[in-house]
Amino acid sequence: MPAYKAPLRDMRFLIDHVFDFPAHYAALGATEASPDMVSAILEEGARFCENVLAPLNRPGDEEGCHFDNGVVTTPKGFKEAFAQYVEGGWHGLAADPAYGGQGLPSSLGLVLSEMIGSSNTSWGMYPGLTHGAMSAIHAHGTQEQKDTYLTKLTAGQWTGTMCLTEAHCGTDLGIIKTRAVPQANGSYAVTGSKIFISAGEHDMSENIIHLVLAKLPDAPAGTKGISLFIVPKFLADSGARNGVSCGSIEHKMGIKASATCVLNFDGAEGYLIGEANKGLNCMFTMMNHARLGTGMQGLCLGEASFQGAIKYANDRLQMRALTGAKAPDKPADPIIVHPDVRRMLLTMKAFNEGNRALTYFTAQLLDTAHLSDDPQQRQEAEDLLAFLTPICKAFMTETGLEVTNHGMQVFGGHGFIREWGMEQLVRDCRIAPIYEGTNGIQALDLLGRKVLGSQGKLLRGFTKIVHKFCAANAEHPQLKAQVAQLNELNQQWGELTTKVGMAAMKNPDEVGAAALDYLMYSGYIIHAYLWLRMALVAQAQLDAGSGDGDYARGKLVTCEFYFKRLLPRTSAHRAAVEAGSDCLMSLPAELFAL
Amino acid sequence: MPAYKAPLRDMRFLIDHVFDFPAHYAALGATEASPDMVSAILEEGARFCENVLAPLNRPGDEEGCHFDNGVVTTPKGFKEAFAQYVEGGWHGLAADPAYGGQGLPSSLGLVLSEMIGSSNTSWGMYPGLTHGAMSAIHAHGTQEQKDTYLTKLTAGQWTGTMCLTEAHCGTDLGIIKTRAVPQANGSYAVTGSKIFISAGEHDMSENIIHLVLAKLPDAPAGTKGISLFIVPKFLADSGARNGVSCGSIEHKMGIKASATCVLNFDGAEGYLIGEANKGLNCMFTMMNHARLGTGMQGLCLGEASFQGAIKYANDRLQMRALTGAKAPDKPADPIIVHPDVRRMLLTMKAFNEGNRALTYFTAQLLDTAHLSDDPQQRQEAEDLLAFLTPICKAFMTETGLEVTNHGMQVFGGHGFIREWGMEQLVRDCRIAPIYEGTNGIQALDLLGRKVLGSQGKLLRGFTKIVHKFCAANAEHPQLKAQVAQLNELNQQWGELTTKVGMAAMKNPDEVGAAALDYLMYSGYIIHAYLWLRMALVAQAQLDAGSGDGDYARGKLVTCEFYFKRLLPRTSAHRAAVEAGSDCLMSLPAELFAL
Repeated sequence: MPAYKAPLRDMRFLIDHVFDFPAHYAALGATEASPDMVSAILEEGARFCENVLAPLNRPGDEEGCHFDNGVVTTPKGFKEAFAQYVEGGWHGLAADPAYGGQGLPSSLGLVLSEMIGSSNTSWGMYPGLTHGAMSAIHAHGTQEQKDTYLTKLTAGQWTGTMCLTEAHCGTDLGIIKTRAVPQANGSYAVTGSKIFISAGEHDMSENIIHLVLAKLPDAPAGTKGISLFIVPKFLADSGARNGVSCGSIEHKMGIKASATCVLNFDGAEGYLIGEANKGLNCMFTMMNHARLGTGMQGLCLGEASFQGAIKYANDRLQMRALTGAKAPDKPADPIIVHPDVRRMLLTMKAFNEGNRALTYFTAQLLDTAHLSDDPQQRQEAEDLLAFLTPICKAFMTETGLEVTNHGMQVFGGHGFIREWGMEQLVRDCRIAPIYEGTNGIQALDLLGRKVLGSQGKLLRGFTKIVHKFCAANAEHPQLKAQVAQLNELNQQWGELTTKVGMAAMKNPDEVGAAALDYLMYSGYIIHAYLWLRMALVAQAQLDAGSGDGDYARGKLVTCEFYFKRLLPRTSAHRAAVEAGSDCLMSLPAELFAL
Repeated sequence: MPAYKAPLRDMRFLIDHVFDFPAHYAALGATEASPDMVSAILEEGARFCENVLAPLNRPGDEEGCHFDNGVVTTPKGFKEAFAQYVEGGWHGLAADPAYGGQGLPSSLGLVLSEMIGSSNTSWGMYPGLTHGAMSAIHAHGTQEQKDTYLTKLTAGQWTGTMCLTEAHCGTDLGIIKTRAVPQANGSYAVTGSKIFISAGEHDMSENIIHLVLAKLPDAPAGTKGISLFIVPKFLADSGARNGVSCGSIEHKMGIKASATCVLNFDGAEGYLIGEANKGLNCMFTMMNHARLGTGMQGLCLGEASFQGAIKYANDRLQMRALTGAKAPDKPADPIIVHPDVRRMLLTMKAFNEGNRALTYFTAQLLDTAHLSDDPQQRQEAEDLLAFLTPICKAFMTETGLEVTNHGMQVFGGHGFIREWGMEQLVRDCRIAPIYEGTNGIQALDLLGRKVLGSQGKLLRGFTKIVHKFCAANAEHPQLKAQVAQLNELNQQWGELTTKVGMAAMKNPDEVGAAALDYLMYSGYIIHAYLWLRMALVAQAQLDAGSGDGDYARGKLVTCEFYFKRLLPRTSAHRAAVEAGSDCLMSLPAELFAL
């Protein structure tokens, strides 16, 4: 496994310069997120992730989780690392101080999340799911529920889960079968079977608080009849074991150290959280955060893969450069001299740094939506979040998967061997385009619900930003060509959307037919905008002789690479969008046969 | 694991109609490959692969190979299946009758290989490597060597390997360290360590014949000083154990039932095969066949994945069609009603059937190169093979990997679970873009050595065929638009090549910078040509009311899909080719740092 080093230089470049976090926090009154605090989190977080989590990553994959008669044991060291993490105060970093958290903005939690995900994605699932459960209880729980659960969840004494999927339905939650029957004491008896429950059972905490989607006896059919329940493993008051048990854990392609559980609820005592039949709405309020978190797995694993690949590309000697030997004293040149190896490395670098910029950009919107006093500012942030979230989830995981595959390819045959750790990153990343709503579902959400559903308003909220940016930088001495390229694509984006919208009015299948390619097309344009924002800063630093000149030069080359070699993929995605639905739908289903 | 059914309808469509194998075999005088014989091989081969090999595929992945003190045991059932395969006469199908083979054309061997690879890629590695060793001995061995080894190899009593890679070199064989010292009896003492040796040690045969690259004591440096040696595990005359042993087997991402061995040669008795210092040339004569075989793994695993995906897409109920319920009597519609699921299925179908057509097209060229009496025809076939081989290897494995990933995605969360078998196909496929020369090396071979190295002659050999085809079909009533699209790309292909060639004259790095995208660009155009050849036949069948109307309609829809949604990817690859090498090479290696 490549040793992980937190990419602090790039993080600081974004935090201090591109997105000016100090000003952002000051404007939101988040004074506790001082530059010193941010710096301490970066450095101490890096230390924890590099030294504690990263060394457990490959052993965790090899060992996996153990299941024995309902009991799940996590790989050696996982439990102890969780204790250390909790003790270090990391778990409550962005949690409400009313329940023992440190109350830092969630953007800082995401900065930490990246380091955790890069060093050990499987391990990160346990606190990650707990944060999801905490958000749900915080947003929708009664004061009593908050008092009962949040303090112990924040303290890491208890952990949490989200129980949505059943064997016959994942995307289509309207057809879940789990039932909740009201009891005399005001609680509910929850019965049913849930699958794919991450952190559903394990040995890292004293208690596990499940958030479970189920239907009341009189519930309307479909998604409007789903309610959300708190179902603890051990009852909070009596400490008695509740009627929920782990039936098995899945054997998976990757994230093997993350326990993926079948949970059987057999008349388990549960408590309604939020309004009856509004359970899906409760879930949706957490969706932005959870989906950004899943998108980040593409960044996290891509970053880990890049770190392995640059080291190997500098170490591995193989063939001579076509332009003549570069290391004549050695038996061959390091493979980083070969253009095709650099093509892979730069693709990785461009996607990772673009994805990190997208994460930070979106994280600031999350802060604003949560913390701003100004309702209009909050609404604007929420609109942008609604638009960007499916793109973050899907584009970052698609590109993350591409990145981890390049990293493996750089290693040649050694990339396929488990010992080197590069193939684990591909396997661990492969789930990210699937869970938390498949990328196909994200694409439908983006194009159908968000863009067309708002008559283009949510798209225009973003293209306006790009438009202004391009207008302001149209005459930039070094970057004007790229600014013009972005500006043109930004206009084309609107036109393409109109075209799809018109077609969709006649035939709703046009939305589904265009959606995935539309999302990828959008992602490439957003990355282009973010790359130019980074390049402007890098160029300004070079002009001023400030900052880290070498790093700035690397940014500018990568930006050029992105515009020349990756952004043109928009043309293929645009053509696919324009192809329409006929060639997808005209073949009767039964003719998909051998 | 999805049950495998040999796609006989598509195979017959290509064999009987598109590529007219009966006429092809007749023209080459390969009378033994009669239509009845071809039919028997299709049907009996399908039966063997479906019933014997496919059921061993997932258990083989779960069990893997065992290593114990130099002894390698293959998964349960592998040995018995090999015995059945040999007994059925499959192993010697395309082998020389002088040594017990059936002497059928190698194209028929490839038809069988596809079925083997789809049903059990790992298992197929053992006979596959043996065929490689047989070809080498047949092409370069002395009569005595042929007599000693070929009969038993053909009979499957012995198996073979190819030992090239060492820990410090795979691509760069010029720097191998294994040494061969001449002995008084005319043999050589071979000493060194080889890694990544597929089928290097196992329990399926009595003896293993290693073909080993090594250097003579006085050998020139680099690739011109490599010789090839036969090193049997047990000496053929005495039966004594030779000085070669298996040090360990690799733990890999996939093809886990294929033993990937470290082989230690410790003064092992070896026999020079072919001329001294010409060992790499001996290897290259087999390269076309081996690389096509590796390319086919993309097709094989893609086909297996497609079969799983279409079944699941028809069975799995989730959400309603956007155009209204299609299965109102069921709780939800089968997911094949959703355009985005069809996008994945049609992408799989288009790549698989295009790759199968490319395989058969290339297989006929292999036959012609081997069997034709006409030296000019042989030379033309060899030129086309030289051009197509790197494309077959790289394009078919890149698209195969995309296909297996789509197949997994169709399954949603279930795709990530080992039990369903879909993720194994991704893992098994992931090695194919790496071994037998990475796809980056294939791309350099195509653009540098083949296309530019022949001053464009090898490219023109193919574009001429396309040009003639387009001219002949320019007025086709239903397909003329696609013919025009192909014709335009075909011209652009030549122009793009000229542009790269000019740039490369000034800077050799331009070749490496353009190579992979150039190869992919070329692959898409070749698929377009083959899709139109299939569409022409399908349309003619529909017009004539002959053939299988449903199947022909499926071909036409898939062709339309390919032209509208996949072929436009050429524009992105062209832009990357045109981007040149500067943005790849201008960043000093040390600036690829965190």
